Amino acid sequence: MSNQILVVGSLAYDSIKSPEGEVEKSLGGSANFFSVAASQYAPVRVVGVVGNDYPDSDIAVLKDRGNIDTAGIQKVTTGKTFHWKGKYEGDLSEAITLQTDLNVFEHFDPQLPTYFRDSSHVFLANIDPVLQMKVLDQIEKPTLVAMDTMNFWIMSKIADVKVLLKKIDLLFINEGEAKLLTGKANAVAASEEILKMGPKAVLVKRGEYGVFIRTDKGMAVLPAFPVARVVDPTGAGDTFAGACFGYLCQKGNHDFNTLKQACVHGTVMASMTVEKFGLNRLKEVTAPELADRRSQLLEISKFSV
Amino acid sequence: MSNQILVVGSLAYDSIKSPEGEVEKSLGGSANFFSVAASQYAPVRVVGVVGNDYPDSDIAVLKDRGNIDTAGIQKVTTGKTFHWKGKYEGDLSEAITLQTDLNVFEHFDPQLPTYFRDSSHVFLANIDPVLQMKVLDQIEKPTLVAMDTMNFWIMSKIADVKVLLKKIDLLFINEGEAKLLTGKANAVAASEEILKMGPKAVLVKRGEYGVFIRTDKGMAVLPAFPVARVVDPTGAGDTFAGACFGYLCQKGNHDFNTLKQACVHGTVMASMTVEKFGLNRLKEVTAPELADRRSQLLEISKFSV
Repeated sequence: MSNQILVVGSLAYDSIKSPEGEVEKSLGGSANFFSVAASQYAPVRVVGVVGNDYPDSDIAVLKDRGNIDTAGIQKVTTGKTFHWKGKYEGDLSEAITLQTDLNVFEHFDPQLPTYFRDSSHVFLANIDPVLQMKVLDQIEKPTLVAMDTMNFWIMSKIADVKVLLKKIDLLFINEGEAKLLTGKANAVAASEEILKMGPKAVLVKRGEYGVFIRTDKGMAVLPAFPVARVVDPTGAGDTFAGACFGYLCQKGNHDFNTLKQACVHGTVMASMTVEKFGLNRLKEVTAPELADRRSQLLEISKFSV
Repeated sequence: MSNQILVVGSLAYDSIKSPEGEVEKSLGGSANFFSVAASQYAPVRVVGVVGNDYPDSDIAVLKDRGNIDTAGIQKVTTGKTFHWKGKYEGDLSEAITLQTDLNVFEHFDPQLPTYFRDSSHVFLANIDPVLQMKVLDQIEKPTLVAMDTMNFWIMSKIADVKVLLKKIDLLFINEGEAKLLTGKANAVAASEEILKMGPKAVLVKRGEYGVFIRTDKGMAVLPAFPVARVVDPTGAGDTFAGACFGYLCQKGNHDFNTLKQACVHGTVMASMTVEKFGLNRLKEVTAPELADRRSQLLEISKFSV
């Protein structure tokens, strides 16, 4: 059987204000960003939950791509979809949360369609680590397991996060959260510490500064693709993870060099997401413009002495 | 005549506290860091001022390197040397100034030894833009002029800074200060704006994230050399500028590719400075360890798809 990605994460509506404008209840959520990005590389199976306000046309955003299986999306008719309201100011480097309505996410109990259990590649997007574990436990024999997490879970459920870290291969984590998780002052020291916690590789996401890559084979640092006008950074990290993990699934390999290549794909895909609100830019990306940006990124990061 | 660097900047004593320890009145100042770094590549002439508390043995730190001419350092017997007291916390990304004693720097009137006037390469370290201009006016026919500046001058003497920007070739500037100078939200947009202000090239210094390079030929992004334990970032920017500018002087060229190479040299030299307090690490660097780090830096920033 060929490789398949399974992702569990949020399907959400985001209300966002940035210096470049604002949107009300725009389609978002980690599973949406991740799936659209990953589907450029490999088939994706989505596990998540939505409410009675989530029309089929929003499910179709995934389904219509042709290689995204939405059978794992539960629709709860008695509640509303997860809603996040936030804003960005100044250099847009930090999301300020104004309101979080968990809604149907609060009682989410992920049950995978039986045929999802043979998925080779598993991505546990940033949700409650107890739910992440529940999903992972239902997978028979994954080849590669990755997860993301955030400060909220590190502070409130650190024991669960640590148990999970021992069962995964690859951690995607924001730089500030890597420092929080390890008590270290920088990505170099924090990533070293994270490898001791279980994962064989860690990708420290640095926003406009790119990504710091660490495995037992060494480290690497890739800058972000330069974007002069950032409209909305929401979902950039999930987009990065989607393209990166999608590439790894497509290649059926995750050695150091393939992981570095995957980061180029992830970085370029994420640079698209930030150019418009929500999924608007990501939905319309074309293979040629992605290839063009990858060439540009390699060019601007090419040095010699 | 061969190429010569002239630098004007501070010779100072720094009292510094960081999570890794503290020092009292340690030898520092932009001209010291810059000169020690630049002297690895080209002869340096220093212009500055010190007080009666500055022993000849501290001048000798420069003089003893063999290719640093200290004839432009004025010694004012009626006052004390410039003193800066500051601290770093958390991730050490920001210096918190606790005390600034300008002392002899307050009435500094830079007068160059006549034979300094034929210098080919001029670096105006971060001091009052009026003083920077006074020095530049005394140089006959420089090949390449670079400067640094900071938020204090951008806020208090923006008109002088702007006049100066029209007369220089290359600006070294911290990212936060580049944003302040241009009102732009990121290095991509800010650097574009800075090129309109006069300089043909700008190097946006990003601390632990490296450097963003912009000229009319394009842009490039180089990560910092990874240092797990940063002891004291003071002088890292001046060290970067010293090695970078020294390399440009040695090569007698400043095209885009040479500038990129120069940034590799600057980045590696700066990674040395942060490993100990003050000039302690920089003073002892050897050519082989620099070459080794340059290879490592190229390796960790090498990507393909």
